Amino acid sequence: MSIHKYELRAKAVQSMLCIGLDSAFEKLPERFHREDFPQFAFNLWLIEQTHPYVSAYKPNMAFYEARGDQGWRELHMTMDYLHEQHPDIYTICDAKRADIDSTNAGYVTAVFDRLGFDAVTLHPYLGREALEPFLERGDCIILCRTSNPGAGELQDLSVGGKPLWQVVAERVHDEWNTRGNCMLVVGATYPDELRQVRAIVGEMTLLVPGVGAQGGTVEDVIRVGRNTAGLGLIISASRSVIFADNPAEEARRLQAEMQRIAPK
Amino acid sequence: MSIHKYELRAKAVQSMLCIGLDSAFEKLPERFHREDFPQFAFNLWLIEQTHPYVSAYKPNMAFYEARGDQGWRELHMTMDYLHEQHPDIYTICDAKRADIDSTNAGYVTAVFDRLGFDAVTLHPYLGREALEPFLERGDCIILCRTSNPGAGELQDLSVGGKPLWQVVAERVHDEWNTRGNCMLVVGATYPDELRQVRAIVGEMTLLVPGVGAQGGTVEDVIRVGRNTAGLGLIISASRSVIFADNPAEEARRLQAEMQRIAPK
Repeated sequence: MSIHKYELRAKAVQSMLCIGLDSAFEKLPERFHREDFPQFAFNLWLIEQTHPYVSAYKPNMAFYEARGDQGWRELHMTMDYLHEQHPDIYTICDAKRADIDSTNAGYVTAVFDRLGFDAVTLHPYLGREALEPFLERGDCIILCRTSNPGAGELQDLSVGGKPLWQVVAERVHDEWNTRGNCMLVVGATYPDELRQVRAIVGEMTLLVPGVGAQGGTVEDVIRVGRNTAGLGLIISASRSVIFADNPAEEARRLQAEMQRIAPK
Repeated sequence: MSIHKYELRAKAVQSMLCIGLDSAFEKLPERFHREDFPQFAFNLWLIEQTHPYVSAYKPNMAFYEARGDQGWRELHMTMDYLHEQHPDIYTICDAKRADIDSTNAGYVTAVFDRLGFDAVTLHPYLGREALEPFLERGDCIILCRTSNPGAGELQDLSVGGKPLWQVVAERVHDEWNTRGNCMLVVGATYPDELRQVRAIVGEMTLLVPGVGAQGGTVEDVIRVGRNTAGLGLIISASRSVIFADNPAEEARRLQAEMQRIAPK
């Protein structure tokens, strides 16, 4: 599986930074609105500004679906561009999908075959059996402790004395990860939980969104979340980078911060 | 909210039948493969065959996303056709979405504004706070007990002596449904759980997939799942109808079965 691709890239550029290509049309700088393919044009510009500092890009499907078939086409163009120009950068489809078994095959076709992503984010609620079409096909990043303020409503429910998110972490580590292609999502906004997840999952890589606009700090995330190799984290920032006055400067700053905290 | 639209239609045609437009391209009859818009052409044919017997149509997004922007366009054409020709039939976007708050706004735009669905299916794992953009916008059908064989892995976990799916049912009924626009998904393959969910949620409407190809029976579903008005169910069949030799006959048969069990 291709998590090795992420690790190679992270070592090559000394960065665990993932940029969320959450390119909401209405938030794009005015000059992109005049383009034939505004979301693609913005992404291309953003990738060229930031690629030296990043190991992964993570478009969230919601911002493309909001523009229907046009958004889909521009996401596809973005992925084609990444494959051609930056094939060593890891790509995550932040789709948060999960349906029953045979239906998931449609999503697998969309995400892995058609768009060519390395990984996809998934809801755990339907169980491992339902997710098998994803698990046998590519890298699977399962939601464990999400970054939103109300995440605890269900995720903190006590199951035999443990919060549900902890049971999800254990299941994924002990039972779902037979192919070594599972990861977990743990929000940067919950460093205590991140520390506990690291204790459960050994060397497993964790996708950590919520740095920047949502309030999590890179320093907290690395100190409590890295694995014994000093890696095992995909640290994701979206709005705070892509809508910054100078995205390159902001990405470079995050890369430098990561290097200062976790020197190789 | 528009669940009233469903109830009016269900009374008008004396049917609680929802047909899942799971129009997987590779499963379409050969003659549709030659069409410019094969999934749309199939849906149009299917709708014309079956509409007298149904109260709702439920396309699952996975089967359209599998064909990328082309599939999106054909789903859009299908929805435009339904709005023009059969505006009184309820429409459910079986998308099983759920992201954090601001990101969900993109899905809301796609599902409700762009495609014009009446309802969308949603994962509960991120909690009510995350789903607010959906809850304030349209009908929300929350996954409770899904129809797949492995549904119990997480959904049956004991939370203070109750299975997690029961806690989800209680939360949605007690706390999420302040606007009266929430429903729950409970698989036809689990009639015991369906009976218990009905006891928890009062008159709330339940979407019950898994009749037909997945093995649930209409009789079981109605006997244990109907509300005091003899309604409160959206009973969904997909493959067993849409890929039947005669979909009209199969839909009519299901309608008749519903009428026999639950006479008005």
